[in-house]
Amino acid sequence: MTFWKFFFKDKKSSQLNKIDHISIQRIGKENLYLSTCKQVNLEELEQLCDSVGWVRRPLRKVKFALENSFLIVSIFNIKENNKRLVGFARVTSDGSFNATVWDVVIHPDFQGKGLGKLLMNEIIQELRKYDISTITLFADPEVVKFYKQIGFMVDPDEVKGMFWYPT
Amino acid sequence: MTFWKFFFKDKKSSQLNKIDHISIQRIGKENLYLSTCKQVNLEELEQLCDSVGWVRRPLRKVKFALENSFLIVSIFNIKENNKRLVGFARVTSDGSFNATVWDVVIHPDFQGKGLGKLLMNEIIQELRKYDISTITLFADPEVVKFYKQIGFMVDPDEVKGMFWYPT
Repeated sequence: MTFWKFFFKDKKSSQLNKIDHISIQRIGKENLYLSTCKQVNLEELEQLCDSVGWVRRPLRKVKFALENSFLIVSIFNIKENNKRLVGFARVTSDGSFNATVWDVVIHPDFQGKGLGKLLMNEIIQELRKYDISTITLFADPEVVKFYKQIGFMVDPDEVKGMFWYPT
Repeated sequence: MTFWKFFFKDKKSSQLNKIDHISIQRIGKENLYLSTCKQVNLEELEQLCDSVGWVRRPLRKVKFALENSFLIVSIFNIKENNKRLVGFARVTSDGSFNATVWDVVIHPDFQGKGLGKLLMNEIIQELRKYDISTITLFADPEVVKFYKQIGFMVDPDEVKGMFWYPT
């Protein structure tokens, strides 16, 4: 019952305008489940990020970022009573016009199974419920092709993604 | 006293994790004031957007977008007791790692006075208080040079800004 408790425990969120409902769907016939629950186990998330070689981030900052994300989508692999976080993505948004997708990650053991596409399609579907019409992201060169396949465009009308970093 | 009432009336916000403090600073010796108050007069904002030829948006959606913005910066021109919104920008963010700037607008009568740069520098300064290290935006071709002058970079490390629009 561990994982059901995980999904259904009470949530205390101040993000009243955020998507925070719980939706679980089984993916095909595999023991994979997709969830939009905003309750994410920070340690599991960091382990998933470790698996793709991302630099560790302060848990306090990760927790705050999740609380301030408009949408979080997770994919779990369930075996017997054990759940394992194998996919994750989150979205910042004004809930009205624009959204930006961050931290899209699929565990290497589960890559090549279409889970990334499934994750992104779920995000698009959820954001469209809010009539959000501009969904954006910043893609590393090696994943630009992947996002193009989902329907994302690079620099439409010569609009350029720009970054500011502290010097 | 109209405009002071505007700034200081009670705010009912559920965005507990958002920047919602009030800060007003006079810009140089002109009757221009910069504010990070999240209380924005929707009609004034739409008039400002009209002045630069933006398409009108449903006020209900604009209101929701402002409520869900992490930071809002406005510039007012004050003459006698009349305040006029002449500059505006807003930011979505996870409050922790990433932020995206939207709807940057300066009224044509006040362009070429450095207000855009002032607006953007205020945004960077406010976001840095939260230790937010990745500030992003999507720039039309004609303003890319402006944002470069402020320190924004196009496609650093070949990271590409990508868009999804409903078809």
